[in-house]
Amino acid sequence: MSSTITLYGYWRSSASWRVRIGLEYKKLPYEYVPVHLNRGGGEQRQAAHRLRNPMQQVPVLELVEKDRTVRLIQSMAILEYLEERWPAPPLLPVDSAARAASRALAELVNSGIQPLQNLTVLEQLKRAGADEKDWARHFIGRGLEALEMLAAQTAGRFLVGDEVSIADVCLVPQLYNARRFDVDLDAYSTLRRVEENCSKLDAFARAHANRQPDAQHGS
Amino acid sequence: MSSTITLYGYWRSSASWRVRIGLEYKKLPYEYVPVHLNRGGGEQRQAAHRLRNPMQQVPVLELVEKDRTVRLIQSMAILEYLEERWPAPPLLPVDSAARAASRALAELVNSGIQPLQNLTVLEQLKRAGADEKDWARHFIGRGLEALEMLAAQTAGRFLVGDEVSIADVCLVPQLYNARRFDVDLDAYSTLRRVEENCSKLDAFARAHANRQPDAQHGS
Repeated sequence: MSSTITLYGYWRSSASWRVRIGLEYKKLPYEYVPVHLNRGGGEQRQAAHRLRNPMQQVPVLELVEKDRTVRLIQSMAILEYLEERWPAPPLLPVDSAARAASRALAELVNSGIQPLQNLTVLEQLKRAGADEKDWARHFIGRGLEALEMLAAQTAGRFLVGDEVSIADVCLVPQLYNARRFDVDLDAYSTLRRVEENCSKLDAFARAHANRQPDAQHGS
Repeated sequence: MSSTITLYGYWRSSASWRVRIGLEYKKLPYEYVPVHLNRGGGEQRQAAHRLRNPMQQVPVLELVEKDRTVRLIQSMAILEYLEERWPAPPLLPVDSAARAASRALAELVNSGIQPLQNLTVLEQLKRAGADEKDWARHFIGRGLEALEMLAAQTAGRFLVGDEVSIADVCLVPQLYNARRFDVDLDAYSTLRRVEENCSKLDAFARAHANRQPDAQHGS
């Protein structure tokens, strides 16, 4: 069944970036519609986007098909959907324990790091009088330290073995964010090696934040 | 293949609670080993548990089998593993869009609410001089409001249609947490109705925080 795919995203939203990698990796053509997270108080808070996602977040993926339109939110749910509908090339290993490891490393980033350093949370911290950069550095560092220890047990060329998986899809945008917050990545040699291997792949290159039409270089 | 299953958890850790529901729903016998998150500076930070999970969190699920031992972390990855290995009774719908909806609602809780109100984050907020109860109420309220809007579109007897799914598994412990932080749940009639339907099922009753051997009533 053919689908017309639209991705509502933001260039350096790491959750949007994950979905871009997934779409590119599976060679699924899509239209990219930027939702600017800072402009005009945040376009994600405006009525048009709230209808797409009441959580007022990106990404949102819309698939228009002959018999129905499917609207998807939450990057991990979107990646699982892509994997089930377009299984090749895969973003999960075959072996059940390796699949669980891949999902666990992805979730360590998705639920263990990213939510603690996203825009809304940092804005709220500022209002509460806390130092939001210290906060982000603390939680990114804590998460990456654990990720490095786990990856040292599971990684080959990529985070779990020698094939790309959803764990790598989550890693790459998170390391970009870590650098934005001046987190020292020296100790994370496995993560940096895997990132380097990912960066050589076309799908990761095309999905990169800086390559998107809404990228604001130097911001 | 038969497995000896051990769950390292904590009675009111909502991520541990989710895994208990999953195990009970699929009628998988398991040994429950409490990891006390407050005692002695937090047992999750001690060496024995750091070896199980360098992220220093619960749950950890260990499956000992004839030919190998599998150790799993991250509640969503664990639930997906259980679903793939023991598909009946299912915790995901059959239809691809409904599966994505179920995972999205689960992730809204798992990455959109729970990480912002867990113990480590509230401790860090206190250190940063912010009011951690206000913070928790803000983010729980914001998440539940979005969840209610989405659930109003997808719910039948449960959050997605008329069968239990991982979305319900995540909802129930989150509502318990919401009450701990005095979040007003009056506006969330769909969520409360689904919670009531879940509470009538044996699996949810047996997995409840207050029924666990490490529960501290009145704390």
